[in-house]
Amino acid sequence: MHQPLPVSGAIVAEYLSLFRQQAPLVHCMTNDVVQSFTANVLLALGGSPAMVIEAEEAAQFSAIADGLLINVGTLTRSRADAMLSAVGAAVNANTPWTLDPVAVGGLTFRSEFCRRLLVSKPAAIRGNASEILALSGNVQHGRGVDSQHQAEAAIAAATQLARQTGAVVVVTGAIDYVTDGEQLLQVMGGSPLMTRVVGTGCALSAVVTGFTALAGDRLYAIASACRVMSCAGERATARSSGPGSFAPAFLDELWQLDAEVLA
Amino acid sequence: MHQPLPVSGAIVAEYLSLFRQQAPLVHCMTNDVVQSFTANVLLALGGSPAMVIEAEEAAQFSAIADGLLINVGTLTRSRADAMLSAVGAAVNANTPWTLDPVAVGGLTFRSEFCRRLLVSKPAAIRGNASEILALSGNVQHGRGVDSQHQAEAAIAAATQLARQTGAVVVVTGAIDYVTDGEQLLQVMGGSPLMTRVVGTGCALSAVVTGFTALAGDRLYAIASACRVMSCAGERATARSSGPGSFAPAFLDELWQLDAEVLA
Amino acid sequence: MHQPLPVSGAIVAEYLSLFRQQAPLVHCMTNDVVQSFTANVLLALGGSPAMVIEAEEAAQFSAIADGLLINVGTLTRSRADAMLSAVGAAVNANTPWTLDPVAVGGLTFRSEFCRRLLVSKPAAIRGNASEILALSGNVQHGRGVDSQHQAEAAIAAATQLARQTGAVVVVTGAIDYVTDGEQLLQVMGGSPLMTRVVGTGCALSAVVTGFTALAGDRLYAIASACRVMSCAGERATARSSGPGSFAPAFLDELWQLDAEVLA
Repeated sequence: MHQPLPVSGAIVAEYLSLFRQQAPLVHCMTNDVVQSFTANVLLALGGSPAMVIEAEEAAQFSAIADGLLINVGTLTRSRADAMLSAVGAAVNANTPWTLDPVAVGGLTFRSEFCRRLLVSKPAAIRGNASEILALSGNVQHGRGVDSQHQAEAAIAAATQLARQTGAVVVVTGAIDYVTDGEQLLQVMGGSPLMTRVVGTGCALSAVVTGFTALAGDRLYAIASACRVMSCAGERATARSSGPGSFAPAFLDELWQLDAEVLA
Repeated sequence: MHQPLPVSGAIVAEYLSLFRQQAPLVHCMTNDVVQSFTANVLLALGGSPAMVIEAEEAAQFSAIADGLLINVGTLTRSRADAMLSAVGAAVNANTPWTLDPVAVGGLTFRSEFCRRLLVSKPAAIRGNASEILALSGNVQHGRGVDSQHQAEAAIAAATQLARQTGAVVVVTGAIDYVTDGEQLLQVMGGSPLMTRVVGTGCALSAVVTGFTALAGDRLYAIASACRVMSCAGERATARSSGPGSFAPAFLDELWQLDAEVLA
Repeated sequence: MHQPLPVSGAIVAEYLSLFRQQAPLVHCMTNDVVQSFTANVLLALGGSPAMVIEAEEAAQFSAIADGLLINVGTLTRSRADAMLSAVGAAVNANTPWTLDPVAVGGLTFRSEFCRRLLVSKPAAIRGNASEILALSGNVQHGRGVDSQHQAEAAIAAATQLARQTGAVVVVTGAIDYVTDGEQLLQVMGGSPLMTRVVGTGCALSAVVTGFTALAGDRLYAIASACRVMSCAGERATARSSGPGSFAPAFLDELWQLDAEVLA
């Protein structure tokens, strides 16, 4: 693996512009904690979120959506069944789908569920280092939802996972790494304050899902999704007094983001 | 159908004052995405929200609540069963109930569920144009949760639905229309920014539910609920930098709204 | 019972400092309405929230968490089963667990569930006066989630409940009372505006759960949790225009709170 490559502001601006034009319909099957924030992030960027969770409807909907997000944060058995239906229908309809393996590693049910899903060819996988290490089978345990590892420690696992599944894999941390198993991109920015607001990672996975629906190079599209979020995050942090004022500022920054700011 | 009539600020102020005095207990069976925002909107207006969802408890609670909201945004089979229990108990206890048919049309399970509920005499139905058209049987398909139609296109369907069910029907859009099948009221205001914040429509349905509990003319009470929300929305938009700062500003405006502002 | 004792700012600061050092992993099994706010409150204070709800996983997780919160606000039968598994595993692993008996009294299913849980030796119980009165068997009915009683009216019931269960019992209201059945502490502060924002009480229960994990005197640790929240609440109220601007200001205040402010 070569040195990670940066992504230029011009490329990010191009994909953001495509996203706003296409306004992808993002079918979010995500955890109960972050549903509202996830929807608001997609809306602020000009996307069209929809949360549909009953098994039959979820299958119906993932076939017409532009992308499907599977986030296992508050997985239950019935939600897992609905997710399997939705992924199956998405695969049949060529709807790209994204996996967010929240807290995989330390918890058995979700770990087995996520590993089982990997055969269904996700377009993207987004997790922190501990999650990517666990999902790729390199580490068996974890504790809670926060990463016990630096993002750098999971680059090799991410590459392996990308090759094995065909997905673009994103490892987020102080620096985000994005790989398709061949190329490796890096995305700077963001701020530690973002880890003090619930759902910034989960919302990124939803934005990644939306960007998988765009024409162009999927690797660069997904890295652009990461940069859109990290750019808004660092700008919002600069004018916040804490995690409370960060959240509205972050949504405003996503709303206002343009090529000039990204350059 | 005659020309739609406006509703005066004085009437809106009167119903808002009644609402604050009575502080109706609003039993919300709503979708997972908007629960927090819905509760906060009702609290900011002086109402008393409560989310009770287990079938037996939901029936027990809807009998003592002042109004019951049924919103099918994230419907599941078990939630649908609990809603049926709650609606049954509400009808027996003469608790007015409101239907928000989120995304009805494109999704089979919820569409059949909502049509089935119509025989239980809702006091109010609140949806966007696509939802009202679909619920009344005039259009079969939809895509996602956003309306594909202008509100005006659904006035005839709303009138038909009101006559068929006995409900006051609200079609929301750039202008909101409110009808009992005979009279047609229109409510101006609001702003496009409100469509970039998840739950503004769903929260309106909860406010409508609270206003169905007030003494007086239900048609005007419900139009007043719409105007309260559109007035706070346009004022919050005027001092927002985007959808992030809109949400707290909107709640503050609801909290501060008075007769002078509404006039 | 003697005169309630105040808790000094120095003691509160000490426990807050311990909390930030230890960053307890708080397993929240809470209601659907307040999940996001609860997580954000814990994150703003430096804690580590995690919401895990499937029965098998919940048991696995409560055994490794530093504290477990059971909040019955939107209880369902399957969630109740998962909570029982989690509490059982917590007891076996000596993980302290906290009960928030939302709306107990008026609703049969949750009332029986909470009474059944009392034998599993909660470390803490946090409710409003109506809930504590109902849980201790002194009042049978209630209406909605707001207290029909002043906190003072439930001091005797709280004392009885503490002696019966071994828990520290918190009755919240204009003044909060905290008792282990022998000593009684009182915590001033907060503001009426906090009752117009959904989840302030539920989030307090989550913070209490985190503070039960700290070394020291559990009674004073829990009273400190109450004071941390009431102090941030009164400061946030002072710079808010309503319940909308309160919420971000409150999280910022929690983030910034230090010994100087608490003194």
